[in-house]
Amino acid sequence: MADFQNCDSCSSSPLELFERVTAQGEKVRSLKAGKASTDEIDAAVKLLLSLKVTYKTATGQDYKAGSPPVDFSPISNNGPTTTQDEDFVDPWTVQTSNAKGVDYDKLIVRFGSSKIDKELINRIERVTGKTPHHFLRRGIFFSHRDMNQILDAYENKKSFYLYTGRGPSSEAMHVGHLIPFIFTKWLQEVFNVPLVIQLTDDEKFLWKELTVQKAYEYAIENAKDIIACGFDINKTFIFSDLDYLGRSSGFYKNVVKIQKHVTFNQVKGIFGFTDSDCIGKISFPAIQAAPSFSSSFPQIFKDKKDIQCLIPCAIDQDPYFRMTRDVAPRIGYLKPALLHSIFFPALQGAQTKMSASDPNSSIFLTDTPKQIKTKINKHAFSGGKDTIEEHRKYGGNCEVDVSYMYLTFFLEDDDKLEKMKQAYASGALLTGELKKVLIETLQPLIAAHQQRRKQITDEMVKQFMTPRKLAFDF
Amino acid sequence: MADFQNCDSCSSSPLELFERVTAQGEKVRSLKAGKASTDEIDAAVKLLLSLKVTYKTATGQDYKAGSPPVDFSPISNNGPTTTQDEDFVDPWTVQTSNAKGVDYDKLIVRFGSSKIDKELINRIERVTGKTPHHFLRRGIFFSHRDMNQILDAYENKKSFYLYTGRGPSSEAMHVGHLIPFIFTKWLQEVFNVPLVIQLTDDEKFLWKELTVQKAYEYAIENAKDIIACGFDINKTFIFSDLDYLGRSSGFYKNVVKIQKHVTFNQVKGIFGFTDSDCIGKISFPAIQAAPSFSSSFPQIFKDKKDIQCLIPCAIDQDPYFRMTRDVAPRIGYLKPALLHSIFFPALQGAQTKMSASDPNSSIFLTDTPKQIKTKINKHAFSGGKDTIEEHRKYGGNCEVDVSYMYLTFFLEDDDKLEKMKQAYASGALLTGELKKVLIETLQPLIAAHQQRRKQITDEMVKQFMTPRKLAFDF
Repeated sequence: MADFQNCDSCSSSPLELFERVTAQGEKVRSLKAGKASTDEIDAAVKLLLSLKVTYKTATGQDYKAGSPPVDFSPISNNGPTTTQDEDFVDPWTVQTSNAKGVDYDKLIVRFGSSKIDKELINRIERVTGKTPHHFLRRGIFFSHRDMNQILDAYENKKSFYLYTGRGPSSEAMHVGHLIPFIFTKWLQEVFNVPLVIQLTDDEKFLWKELTVQKAYEYAIENAKDIIACGFDINKTFIFSDLDYLGRSSGFYKNVVKIQKHVTFNQVKGIFGFTDSDCIGKISFPAIQAAPSFSSSFPQIFKDKKDIQCLIPCAIDQDPYFRMTRDVAPRIGYLKPALLHSIFFPALQGAQTKMSASDPNSSIFLTDTPKQIKTKINKHAFSGGKDTIEEHRKYGGNCEVDVSYMYLTFFLEDDDKLEKMKQAYASGALLTGELKKVLIETLQPLIAAHQQRRKQITDEMVKQFMTPRKLAFDF
Repeated sequence: MADFQNCDSCSSSPLELFERVTAQGEKVRSLKAGKASTDEIDAAVKLLLSLKVTYKTATGQDYKAGSPPVDFSPISNNGPTTTQDEDFVDPWTVQTSNAKGVDYDKLIVRFGSSKIDKELINRIERVTGKTPHHFLRRGIFFSHRDMNQILDAYENKKSFYLYTGRGPSSEAMHVGHLIPFIFTKWLQEVFNVPLVIQLTDDEKFLWKELTVQKAYEYAIENAKDIIACGFDINKTFIFSDLDYLGRSSGFYKNVVKIQKHVTFNQVKGIFGFTDSDCIGKISFPAIQAAPSFSSSFPQIFKDKKDIQCLIPCAIDQDPYFRMTRDVAPRIGYLKPALLHSIFFPALQGAQTKMSASDPNSSIFLTDTPKQIKTKINKHAFSGGKDTIEEHRKYGGNCEVDVSYMYLTFFLEDDDKLEKMKQAYASGALLTGELKKVLIETLQPLIAAHQQRRKQITDEMVKQFMTPRKLAFDF
């Protein structure tokens, strides 16, 4: 995924953009052929990717060499459209020109979801009797759909289940990928409900240059990192689509039910698919939708079709579930409820989601303490001032400082965080000192994760991934 | 679309070649990075260059990193187009203005298949040592793709398997529906090979106003009629898509492989889908394609991916398999071979395929002797003259006479058929007399079918539909 969009290129026509992408592609090839320096090639590739994103944004289509944008047709209002000062968010691309990151309040309005406000957080505390997770307290999970309905039902002793997932595009997961799992684990613990975790290896096979086998292997490797978050094996079912579709009497039936009620026009509007996309991509949204319905898991829920689903996920996944919620009542199912998180920022800044393919864009779960230290010191975008004198005088800007942002995710101590915020804003705390706190927060956290992951055996993975009854009676 | 592929280059699909070039490129890079010996690097580079040349030869395109040959060969011209005096044939509609029925010679040219000529029929007789079925002798199976390849392999002791199917749109099947099964049964007997029969209940759910449950029930009912044709339970696997997708470790994987290599543009061209069609219809062709590959049935073929498939079907199903044959080499599989039948005419005339929803359009497998008699006498379109005098003088027209056509399907005695043809054409045989022969042919045939069907127990259906090893070792 490309990280930036240069806004000065927004004004170009689709055809001009097409030609710029083509020209840049040729430049990259000639640099590579001419054995240019790695830095030079990297820079050219970066620009190429960014131009491709711009092209897709402008035309709604993926750039395809040799196919100029003849069918240029704008996408409907609900789709991933963007104007010059709007953010762009869909399941594959997140773009903003603002260093503070995406404007989430605007996104709530555009997506038609609801803000997680103080009142809802208080209600969660009342209902569960537990202190709300700091992801809730700090607005990291900031938006929801029908969470009150889940709580109503829960208060009336009606259970629900959790569903989250991951697209296993590589073996490597970074700390940002843990966000939904950390939060889901907390939800599972405070509500004591079943959890299903979908690994969309089929999606990654369809979107990436991967074999079916490789995609499945990534799913297994990712499952280990997920299990290492500490999920309860008696309450959690993890599945690979490529595997589970062939082992469930309920899943495919739900897939075709969903597929019958969604037209190409709809997925075109929601996901920006084009006529040149493969039919696998076009029908995939039904695969991500199906786990929202309890009848996709007969081994867990028996024949119960009315167990409501709650989906914690990053907000870029919402288009899938808007579609799911639209279809649900038409096929006799309950709409899933949702809890949306903000995006985890790249080390380079909050303008984008991170990329698993760029090792310097985040802290990976496999990083050594030294790598963590180097990456943060070298790459974490600073909101501090250029000189110590200026910093002491004017203070740093937490709103754009990536180290501070990371601490909001991983430093659990509210008081300490608040103190650092004030010290940084006042100039008392220097960037290097702030980075040091982050390094000392992440190093033991990652080391502990690695320790836990080491203990995950293939047998345990197999158990987690075996369709089976969980520790709940339905 | 190209039907043939030069067999020297068949061994690798363009995508496979692409992946080999990519892998070799990576190898060269890692050798260089690892400071391997010059000789080693040179050898690897040499292989890389040679693979690139092979790739270009196979695809006509230069190898380009990151750009796999996805849109390798567009399918066009073969789509459901028609001019004013052309017949229209696709899997849902068959139209002709000619009372003799569709012009099959033209269809062969348009679809790019091959005629089953005397030479091929003689070869089948030589290879099997059996008299060719009257469906072959009489041109009812009239067209093929790659049948000679099947026979070549068979002569070299290389086995193949048969695949046919049915869309269970209602409980009621008519005699026309039996054609592919009668012929497939003969093929299975003379070649002694495994047979898989797909019941596309998912398709019927997607296309019709049916529940998933109802579509599955129709599949089970239809399975009984199919079993009643006399298939050998040790050599035949019948499956409902809605059921088998959730019970096979191989099927869904092949579905996504196919789906990755077919674009919406392609299915639009082949099947006439529009943007308003649901994504289930759009992706369904991959479901009908998947049984063409032996790895969709690991319980039968173990891990063998190179058992070729032979598909006997009515010619209106060919668009699915043109698509399948286009995709096959790109995902490393063999193209299925095909044997195409003409359409079974409606009682009212050969202009159309029959409709299972109009009880008077054909003889149903549930009809009583009396119903058979009444339907034929009342509805079978006659090629006879208006008065007995005229008929005796000018004779009847077998080419448009539905009773005569039905006899070509069901009267096995060649001599008797030929005599009747001549008597009818000369005017010696009257329409009523011809109809009587048909009634007396069909009544015992249907009665015997009903007898056999009555003996099909639910347990037998279940056995036929259980994924399992058949009486063949792979």
